[in-house]
This record gives sequence, structure tokens and C-alpha cells, in this order.
Amino acid sequence: MTPQSEDFSAWYNELVIQSQLVDRGPVRGTMVIRPYGYRIWELLQADLDRRIKEAGHDNACFPMFIPESYLKREAEHVEGFSPELAVVTIAGGKELEEPLVVRPTSETVIGEYMAKWIDSHRDLPLLLNQWANVVRWEMRPRMFLRTTEFLWQEGHTAHLDEADAMRETMWALQDAYAAVARDLAAMPVVPGEKTPGERFAGAVRTYTIEAMMRDGRALQAGTSHYLGTNFAKAFEIQYQDEAGRLTLAHTTSWGMSTRMIGGVIMTHGDDKGLVLPPRLAPYQVVIVPIGRKEQGEEAAAEARRLGQAIRSMGIRVHVDDNRPQLSPGFKFNEWELRGVPVRIELGKRDIDNGVATLARRLPTVEGQGKEQIPLDKLPELLPGILAEFQRFLYDRAEAFREEHTADVDTWDAFAAQVAGGWARAFHCGRTACEDEIKAETAATPRCIPLDAPQESGACVKCGQPSAYGKRVIFGKAY
Amino acid sequence: MTPQSEDFSAWYNELVIQSQLVDRGPVRGTMVIRPYGYRIWELLQADLDRRIKEAGHDNACFPMFIPESYLKREAEHVEGFSPELAVVTIAGGKELEEPLVVRPTSETVIGEYMAKWIDSHRDLPLLLNQWANVVRWEMRPRMFLRTTEFLWQEGHTAHLDEADAMRETMWALQDAYAAVARDLAAMPVVPGEKTPGERFAGAVRTYTIEAMMRDGRALQAGTSHYLGTNFAKAFEIQYQDEAGRLTLAHTTSWGMSTRMIGGVIMTHGDDKGLVLPPRLAPYQVVIVPIGRKEQGEEAAAEARRLGQAIRSMGIRVHVDDNRPQLSPGFKFNEWELRGVPVRIELGKRDIDNGVATLARRLPTVEGQGKEQIPLDKLPELLPGILAEFQRFLYDRAEAFREEHTADVDTWDAFAAQVAGGWARAFHCGRTACEDEIKAETAATPRCIPLDAPQESGACVKCGQPSAYGKRVIFGKAY
Repeated sequence: MTPQSEDFSAWYNELVIQSQLVDRGPVRGTMVIRPYGYRIWELLQADLDRRIKEAGHDNACFPMFIPESYLKREAEHVEGFSPELAVVTIAGGKELEEPLVVRPTSETVIGEYMAKWIDSHRDLPLLLNQWANVVRWEMRPRMFLRTTEFLWQEGHTAHLDEADAMRETMWALQDAYAAVARDLAAMPVVPGEKTPGERFAGAVRTYTIEAMMRDGRALQAGTSHYLGTNFAKAFEIQYQDEAGRLTLAHTTSWGMSTRMIGGVIMTHGDDKGLVLPPRLAPYQVVIVPIGRKEQGEEAAAEARRLGQAIRSMGIRVHVDDNRPQLSPGFKFNEWELRGVPVRIELGKRDIDNGVATLARRLPTVEGQGKEQIPLDKLPELLPGILAEFQRFLYDRAEAFREEHTADVDTWDAFAAQVAGGWARAFHCGRTACEDEIKAETAATPRCIPLDAPQESGACVKCGQPSAYGKRVIFGKAY
Repeated sequence: MTPQSEDFSAWYNELVIQSQLVDRGPVRGTMVIRPYGYRIWELLQADLDRRIKEAGHDNACFPMFIPESYLKREAEHVEGFSPELAVVTIAGGKELEEPLVVRPTSETVIGEYMAKWIDSHRDLPLLLNQWANVVRWEMRPRMFLRTTEFLWQEGHTAHLDEADAMRETMWALQDAYAAVARDLAAMPVVPGEKTPGERFAGAVRTYTIEAMMRDGRALQAGTSHYLGTNFAKAFEIQYQDEAGRLTLAHTTSWGMSTRMIGGVIMTHGDDKGLVLPPRLAPYQVVIVPIGRKEQGEEAAAEARRLGQAIRSMGIRVHVDDNRPQLSPGFKFNEWELRGVPVRIELGKRDIDNGVATLARRLPTVEGQGKEQIPLDKLPELLPGILAEFQRFLYDRAEAFREEHTADVDTWDAFAAQVAGGWARAFHCGRTACEDEIKAETAATPRCIPLDAPQESGACVKCGQPSAYGKRVIFGKAY
């Protein structure tokens, strides 16, 4: 496999296929998510779905074919999505009178039904979510990061006023997305607001969580939009307030997608392959029995017993006991490639000594390699070992990001910094100035961090007074 | 609402909307599954997914756009699905060189990848499943039963030989679908084989579970197909056997869809509305506090306490405490319309007496109406009450089916029987004869029941000797 240092893109493209996460789809830009990749999605989905439900949202399912006329009702929205649409023109053997767009996102169709379902202030807030596939025709497709079809959840909510809609927007950003990224994916993220030039088509304010990949680039890992009354106007989403006045609702939308899997790969992976955070690992532990013939049989039997004991601790464990044609060394490499957090090796001599050899995918302590652990203690030790590994990955990623982020106040320092990381800089807030920065360095404003200190200065590019009252994070992005 | 006895179709069409299960989609034949309907699907999905995984299958996700050329590789398959296809011809602002079919089912695209992933006999069986939306352009759409887009799971597996593939086919039919229908949906189903005229396009043998609706019609509630080597030939799904010979795999596919929700409605519903089996009910219990002002407040507070105690028993309970503008009577009717199995009414006098009034959606014992139950006993009694209600629904549906099914041996008796139920009759096995039966009575062969006794006789229509060695079930179908 190509090393990261040589060609990060090639490393990624080879790894996603070799680790059996995905295969290239039959149509350009599509992907087949294989069981190993899909299981990661299921684990993320289960946790995020629980958070969404606990916060009072209901899942629903809206049609994926949207009449072209719906999209046109919100002017900025259709302008933003038009170039990326896939269109059904033939159905049931006939040309359709009105072409159907395959949803790129569902604000329009859901807006239409919100208008139907909302009459009174008592119907608000209306808190909906759906798990769905969406289609955006991508020019530069990349597995997980930009595929023409991808899986996501999209939350869509309607509220009495701006204050309530903004509370929802920030809940999705912080309590759902930042929390899932941190707790499950071990990805430290920076929550912040997008600059006007990077807003969602039709939004009043767009918020994002931005993560740093191991090549120093940024990945937008989830977005949450306050849509104001833009879609409410376009679709007549209105309610009677307590005094009987007809009032426009304020809406939000927010989404997290299979792109997160790409983020996990590029946050933790190395030249040996994937490194999966335990909470998203299909197999948290793999046991490889060692030995041939009778000794191998004995080791396999003991591995199965141990697997059962580990499974009863609520750990996802796989016993690699039915591939006698492969050597232990081959299996070790394969499970490293596939990013299993903990490998347990078990041979006849280990069993006789009442121990097993445990190898973490990465040493959590400098120089710490394999260690021997008494067989009878192993199951109860593993939850702690896995939790420590999860924490280690988070801390390592955070340290990496800090090392590759700096405040810069000159153009030369800016250009040097965004070549391999993130720059925190003052910016004038003009979209034309952002465009110049992008043309010269390929860097874009990633976000205005929520928790940045109040500061002001001269725009790092044009010298005009800074906007936003804060530094903006710039970086090259996926 | 139109009564069942007056117009069953109108009753159904009105009920699915009024009970807030669905709304009509923006495009003809599509549906919006609202939270109350989607929750039923999630409950069914969770149980079926568990069974699928426990039996060793892995979930995956294949693209929904299939190159037109893939579909054409299996001749019967493309012929069967051609009239129903939706086709994307424009994407990213350009006309596509090869039109893309929106998947009506995924045998072809999954076949392509099975061929890639299978090399050796060691790679078999390959047991895949996906939860997906599919599109079939329907001429006579009907909410849940036939919508142009619907949700389902589709299992796709590859095996060493016919025996192993047939074991899989029957597992899906019996251990997955018949069990889910019986245990969750309280739908007694007849598992059986389809006659050649009713087979899935491209299958060697198609199996089905058939359920009787309350108008005497049949609903095909899940199908499982042994595909032989038809798709293996078309997509070159082959493996090296132990002797190194290249051998075709035997494949299966099986699917259960949102159609099941339509089955639940028509198996149990009545003129008051839905009747939901507890295991699929979004709310198994609803508590309605009664009274105005202070007494109402006291009842609501007690209802919330009781709700918490019931919830801690693992029961899905809803406390209807924040709609003071609606009368208790209105709420009772609404929860009956929406099919909640158990309603609990709680007023000040009840609380003073330490009791609550419990009303089942249907009396499980003749003449048994409401009953008073001590508040402190209620939470622990509810699991038993719900289980009894679930059993009652199953037994009632089974008795209904038995009353409306008869062995018939003359054409007159046949025609009379299929007017309002199912006929068990001898049939010659000729598709042309099936077509004549359908033209005259609208009835079709639903299945050759697996567990029917070995019998033979003269075809009920043409008098020729019977095929299959068994009676065939005929009925009008959805």
C-alpha cells in the first residue's frame, strides 16, 4: 500500500478497498458499502438515532422523488443544487409530464408537508428526522467523502420563533454531532459558524463541525442550519399564534452522513491500515488461535471459549478459527489492515501457561508492545483496555490538530500554515476576498469557532478590518 | 369513516390517512410515512434485523442506480420488471450515455459483486442483506400495499449447491417471515410455494407467506426465492470447489416490505379504526387524565407518575397530558382510531379510590368492557394484559381465516367461495387454466401450502388431473 507520507490520497483510495469497507459501484461515483463498512455505519447510526429520539424527534420517511417545481420555490436552494441533480424522466414505460428530481436533500418536500401538518402554535415545535439515501452528482467523487449516492440522516424541524429554532440548531451541532464525533469516532471537532460564502443554499446561518485529517486538511463532518423563514415563506409553513394571528414558522435542518466513515479513516489510520476507535469497530477484539493440527485444534477450542467469555462482557469479538489455509502472520497483518483495536494471540504454550498475548493496534504508551495477560483475567480487563484505547485515539488526534494549527497574522505565514494544517486568521468577511485566498492557496474558511476569544485585527489577505469579532479557521478541505 | 362492510377499500384508504400513518406523496403512487407509521416499521425492522443477523447474515448497502445493461442479462428478470421501471436519463446537467434504472430489486447489481467477491468454496455461503428503498411504477397504487417507492429488506445469498440454497430459502420463509408475521404482527400466515405462473421473474421456485385480510382477500406478506443458477450464469457467480473445478453457485433472494403494515391494518382493524398488536404498537398503553383545572392537574401529575412506573416495565406508554383543549371523549375516540391496545383513564375519584379504569381496544373476553384495577398493581399486570391481547388478536385472525376457507370440488362452489374467502381446490397446474380462473372470478392461486396433506383429484376448472399432489389455495389478492 502507498504510504501516507508519499501520497495521502492514494493511501486512502487503496485502503478503503483493501480493508473491505467498500467497493467501487457500477456507476461512476457510486460505492458499494460492504458489510465491514456498513457495520461502522450501523454503530454510528444506533447512537445518533438514540440521541435524536431522546431529544424528542420522530423518525419519518418522505419520498425520494421530488417534483422539479418544488425545488424551484426557494430561489437560492435550487441555484445551489441544480448542477448536482439526477433526474428521472421516464417511468412505467412513459415519458413523465413533470421530471422528478432524486432528492439531494429534503427541505422542499418536507416543507410541503410541514405546511399541511401545522395549524396552531400547539403543533410546534415539529421535530422530524429521516434516515435516507440522497443523490448529488459529484464531479470529483471519492469513496465516503463525496459519492453520488450517500446515506445520511436529515433532521427537519419547525418552531415558533428564531430563539427556539436556534436552540434546535445548536442542539444538533453540539449535543448530537460534536458529541457523536467525540464519543464514538474519537474525532475532536471544532464547532463553528460558516461564513456567508460557505452557507447551505437557502440557510440564514450554517453551523459545522470541522475535523482535521492526518494530512492537515479539514473535513466538514456534520452541518446544522438555521433556515429562518426562507422555507416557511416558500412553502407557507405558518401557524396561528395564541392571539389567532397567522405567523411564519422558523425552520432548521441538519445532517450527518456516511462521510463520517471517511473521517474516521483519515483521522486515525496509518501506513499499516485502518485504526478503528473501539466504539465504532465492527470487531473490537479478534482472537487468532495459533498452531497446526492437534495443537491448532486445542488453541481454536480455547479461543472459542475465551471468545464466549469476552462476548458476555458486551464486547464485539471475532474468533478467527476457520481459515486454516492462512498463516498467523497473514492474519495479524490483515486484522491490522482492517483496524481491529485489540488482537489476542493464543497458542498451545500460552494455554499451558494460562496466558494470552494481547496486542493493541497502536501502543498507547510509548514503546509498549505486546503484553501477556492471564487468561482468567482477560475478559474483565478488556473493557478498560478498550476505553483507554478510545481515549488514546482522541487525545492523539487532538494533539495532532493542535500541532498543526496556528494563529497567523501575515500572508506569508498564512500560506505556509495552510500548506499542511489550519491557520487561525483575521478576515474581512468579504466573499470576494475568500475567493482570492482560495485561488492562491486552495484554503477556504472552515468556520468561525464558537468558543474562540473575541479579537479583531487586519484581514490577513487584504488588510481591511476583520469581521466576526473573532479569528476564522482556514484550511484546505475535503 | 366508511364502515368496512360498506366499502372495505374506502375504509382502508380513509383510515391510513386519518390515523396519521401516512399521507399521500407529492407524486402519484408515493407515500409519506408519518412518525406513527414509521415507528411500526422500525419495530418490525428491529426484530427482523435481529433474526437476520443471528442467522449469520451481514447487512450491506448497494447503489440504487443500476445500469440498464445489468437488468438485461437475465432474460426473464428484465421482462418481468421492464414495465415498472423508473429511469434516470439526466444527471449533473447532462444526458447520461447509459440510462440508469432506479432499483426495483437488487439481484442484478448484487450478482455482479457476488461474482467479484467469491473465488473459492471457502467464500460460501455468502449471506447478505440490505435495508433499502426500491421503486416499481405501479398502475393501481395503494398506500403500503403498492406504492411506487417502498421500503424493504432484501436478502441475497450464494451457496455451494441446491441443498444449501434451499435450506436458506426455507429459513427466510419460515424462521424469518412466518415467525415475524405470527409473533409481531399477530398474523397467521400460510407458507407455501407459488405456482409457476406466479413466480418471481428469474426464480426457479418462489415461496410465499399468505395472510387473509378481513374482507377475505389474500395478502402476499413476504416472498423467498430459490434462484437456482439463473443469476449465477448471468453474472458468472462461480467458485473453485475442493477439487479445483470452477462451479456455478446457487443463489437465493427474499424480501419483506412496508406492505406488512397494510397487512396489519387489514388483519385487525375495524369500523372504529386501527387495532394494533402490542408488539408493533408505537404506544402500547395510553393514559388519559380526566378532569378540569385543579382536579385535572392532579390527575395529570398522577398519570405521569403512573406512566413512569409503566415505562420502567419496558412498556411503550404515552401520557396524553398536554392537550387541555380536547375533551376526554375526543381523546378516547382518537386513541381507538389509532389502534392503541390499552387505554387507561384516570380521574380524581379514581385516584382517591386508588384505582384506574382500563379499557382494551377490543374485549378479549365476550362482553368484557372496561375494568377497574388498583393503581399499585397496574404496572405489573400490564405485560400479561398486553401478551393476552396479542394472543387474542392472533387467535381471532386465525379463526376468521378458518371460517372463510373451505375445500371445494365443484366450479360453482369454487366461485362462491372465492367471492369472500379462500378455496382449497385441485388444479391442473396449467398457467392458461389459472388465467381463465382469474378472468372469471378474479381469484388467483395464492400458494401450494407446505403442510397440506397429499391428495389428488380433478382440476376444479378444467377437470384434468391435478398437479402438485396437493390442493392449491385460491383467493382474490391484494
